[in-house]
Amino acid sequence: MVIKVAIAGPRGRMGKEAVATIIKNEEFLLVGLLDHKKEEENVGNNIPIFTSLEELIEQTEPDVLVDLTIPTAVFGHAMTALQYGVRPVIGTTGFTDLQLDEIRQKVEEKQIGCLIAPNFSIGAVLMMKFAQTAAKYLPDVEIIEMHHDRKVDAPSGTAIKTAQMIQDTRNPFEQGHPDEEEIFAGARGANIEGMHIHSVRLPGLVAHQQVLLGGEGQLLTIRHDSFDRTSFMSGIVLSIHEIMKQNTLIYGLEEIIL
Amino acid sequence: MVIKVAIAGPRGRMGKEAVATIIKNEEFLLVGLLDHKKEEENVGNNIPIFTSLEELIEQTEPDVLVDLTIPTAVFGHAMTALQYGVRPVIGTTGFTDLQLDEIRQKVEEKQIGCLIAPNFSIGAVLMMKFAQTAAKYLPDVEIIEMHHDRKVDAPSGTAIKTAQMIQDTRNPFEQGHPDEEEIFAGARGANIEGMHIHSVRLPGLVAHQQVLLGGEGQLLTIRHDSFDRTSFMSGIVLSIHEIMKQNTLIYGLEEIIL
Amino acid sequence: MVIKVAIAGPRGRMGKEAVATIIKNEEFLLVGLLDHKKEEENVGNNIPIFTSLEELIEQTEPDVLVDLTIPTAVFGHAMTALQYGVRPVIGTTGFTDLQLDEIRQKVEEKQIGCLIAPNFSIGAVLMMKFAQTAAKYLPDVEIIEMHHDRKVDAPSGTAIKTAQMIQDTRNPFEQGHPDEEEIFAGARGANIEGMHIHSVRLPGLVAHQQVLLGGEGQLLTIRHDSFDRTSFMSGIVLSIHEIMKQNTLIYGLEEIIL
Amino acid sequence: MVIKVAIAGPRGRMGKEAVATIIKNEEFLLVGLLDHKKEEENVGNNIPIFTSLEELIEQTEPDVLVDLTIPTAVFGHAMTALQYGVRPVIGTTGFTDLQLDEIRQKVEEKQIGCLIAPNFSIGAVLMMKFAQTAAKYLPDVEIIEMHHDRKVDAPSGTAIKTAQMIQDTRNPFEQGHPDEEEIFAGARGANIEGMHIHSVRLPGLVAHQQVLLGGEGQLLTIRHDSFDRTSFMSGIVLSIHEIMKQNTLIYGLEEIIL
Repeated sequence: MVIKVAIAGPRGRMGKEAVATIIKNEEFLLVGLLDHKKEEENVGNNIPIFTSLEELIEQTEPDVLVDLTIPTAVFGHAMTALQYGVRPVIGTTGFTDLQLDEIRQKVEEKQIGCLIAPNFSIGAVLMMKFAQTAAKYLPDVEIIEMHHDRKVDAPSGTAIKTAQMIQDTRNPFEQGHPDEEEIFAGARGANIEGMHIHSVRLPGLVAHQQVLLGGEGQLLTIRHDSFDRTSFMSGIVLSIHEIMKQNTLIYGLEEIIL
Repeated sequence: MVIKVAIAGPRGRMGKEAVATIIKNEEFLLVGLLDHKKEEENVGNNIPIFTSLEELIEQTEPDVLVDLTIPTAVFGHAMTALQYGVRPVIGTTGFTDLQLDEIRQKVEEKQIGCLIAPNFSIGAVLMMKFAQTAAKYLPDVEIIEMHHDRKVDAPSGTAIKTAQMIQDTRNPFEQGHPDEEEIFAGARGANIEGMHIHSVRLPGLVAHQQVLLGGEGQLLTIRHDSFDRTSFMSGIVLSIHEIMKQNTLIYGLEEIIL
Repeated sequence: MVIKVAIAGPRGRMGKEAVATIIKNEEFLLVGLLDHKKEEENVGNNIPIFTSLEELIEQTEPDVLVDLTIPTAVFGHAMTALQYGVRPVIGTTGFTDLQLDEIRQKVEEKQIGCLIAPNFSIGAVLMMKFAQTAAKYLPDVEIIEMHHDRKVDAPSGTAIKTAQMIQDTRNPFEQGHPDEEEIFAGARGANIEGMHIHSVRLPGLVAHQQVLLGGEGQLLTIRHDSFDRTSFMSGIVLSIHEIMKQNTLIYGLEEIIL
Repeated sequence: MVIKVAIAGPRGRMGKEAVATIIKNEEFLLVGLLDHKKEEENVGNNIPIFTSLEELIEQTEPDVLVDLTIPTAVFGHAMTALQYGVRPVIGTTGFTDLQLDEIRQKVEEKQIGCLIAPNFSIGAVLMMKFAQTAAKYLPDVEIIEMHHDRKVDAPSGTAIKTAQMIQDTRNPFEQGHPDEEEIFAGARGANIEGMHIHSVRLPGLVAHQQVLLGGEGQLLTIRHDSFDRTSFMSGIVLSIHEIMKQNTLIYGLEEIIL
């Protein structure tokens, strides 16, 4: 059965890729686009563009709404879609707890799935889950994340999240030699719950992370390289398929993987 | 509660490491050693040496027998140990199906655990399991295994086993470009069920393997480096703890991990 | 002093990047573009477009002609440019020996530099040179090159060239164990002069190569990752600067590096 | 011609390896050992042991003295050896400038070579030299060094030396985003002349370093793995051969490599 998909936010960088991905996938039919303007109607190869979600749903009857718009718009979209029986797949964060509760209630009332994924990269989610599992057996962990030098903050959100996930698994302890001494400050990286995190910033790099887990006589390395934003597309495809089988609110791709 | 451990084969390379590991672990008490000769009685820091397993068990009453001897001896040891209610942890392969059946029957009769592990390296087992799981989502896989140049056979047993485990998960397909052409024969490596495996042999290397899983715009790499045989010790320690809680025949460390 | 640059082939993928690179570099002035059609005159931000190289040179008086067109056109361009005293920087291969001789004669006659570079990637050239040098001291070498799975031929041209450069340095010998045995054919890769080369092809990959040099107790790895074609731009910039100081025919970026 | 070699400090960890290396190399003849005690005369397979360097030289007439003793002893050994016309190959640091001057004078007087190498690892020296050269073209550099977690100081001496060598090549500048912000302190590592250095410490690791050089669209990585101390032996062998051809004081393996 072909799944009918609508996309909100088709003009952004992620949105453009998503339009292309849905169009070329034979298991999906791209029925409509939601945008804040209607001008260039040909953005999605003659896919009809709407500025009202209600109108889009009534005229095109999608099964799933893939929402790649900004946080301020996305809550309203999700509530409307659910009300109409359309399953939202949302690629943003920034919901308040209150908003999440409202979405969860609506999901329960309508008995259809809704998926919110801060990170649509299947590879990154697998890396984090594997690191969490491995740390049960090899609890000495360091994380090296590497990004282009236009990135301002360090460590990356993914590195911090990885450390937090590992921390749920292992007993906290201070790694390294107890008398460890930094000849130059910062050499041993950031310390999150005894784990050390290192942030490399270089021109040319895209988005890379490796988790190193050391044990007597061995090293296990789990590395994810994201070369461009098409890496998010397989996660969106998986989410659309999966949300058709679900009837709860799912937060994070990790809930439907493994 | 301290677990009483006996070791068969204490003079081999693995055996020596195991003796040292058990002695320094406070949760274990090394009560006896089984060897084919009794000469250098001080091999294990005054641990008594026996040439008869029955005698060893009767005099020292171990909870667990760690068996690191050769395949020909190990079946008899396992049956004797089980008969006396001692749980075997066996680091070898080469059992016939008939022998495995006999062990399984004895295990059921005695209702105590028995563990056979062809590979005691926790990191290597985690790598294989993670690769198997990841291939569900990223089915394009290549394996690069790297060993010292005194290794005769290629690919390594671990690489072949990894490919077989992945093959259980994914639908078989031929990877790479359909018109792929080798300008120099062998460039694309060995082809196992459509997966490509590459064997690097260089002086200096020890034992390393990486599994590369590619998807649109991304690469997930799971790598294990084994620097020396102490890497097997954490697997032996884990097995001893775990076998005390089991009452079946367990084949492969992967059964008690994750 | 600002260097006046003309670009032949501004509409191709490399050409577009080159136009952008030259425009934003303050040490260069992009004076004209050579194309086979004049239509979209605004291709280069109001840079004048010519279909005749002579006309371009007479009207814009460039110091350097960067030629990114196809092999069939490039020889004529080079001879014309040299005749007018314009230094060619050529990013293609495929000259016959006879053509190279003619260019060399013209270069000598005019006493100005001309640079032909099959590979403008500084990183790749450094990798090859370093591998060549290192192989003098660590002669056991294996090469792993990794590309997207739309690449048909294996090994890559860069891998073959690297092997040839190393071969010039070291005494040829068969690496690996003399009794080496492939359980699955191809495991040990392609054999070029005793060196083993492995070609990985996966979706997501771009263009990557690592040269591994092993010695007793150690491994030296020289790796180059090319993430997109902007990686060629720094080589073009370097070539333009360098060719202004030269008065010979230079073949290969390696001649002006190190 | 076979080179006659004596070794000072044959009982240390490096010394034992050196004895084995010299004995099995057919181009060398191990003629004598210098030690502080004469007891276990069989340390070097019946190689005569001396407690006096003068006596050793007079009785065994070595061409080269490989000195692997402690800094306090080594200056005296070097001066004595040179006085007798024996070429010292010294694997230690810690000479005062005054001592170096004295050695240099004696070398000039005697017109024979003397080599002092703080690091006998050919691979590590190649890594440092290549990094230095590459930074001319790709000046954005980060260093990741990784050692076992029994190492107290960070960064490693090799990492600091690498940064200093690169600093001699490139114009100093602050790498990364000008508004860079550490959410957790230390994430961006130690800052040496604008370069960032990261020190990983994990059980299982031995001694590893990678130098990452980023440019637009590309990354060049130079990595050295030292798996055990046999990695120093090829440097000692090279030094013995090389010092026979020299008649000056050579400081650092890098002087005779490349």
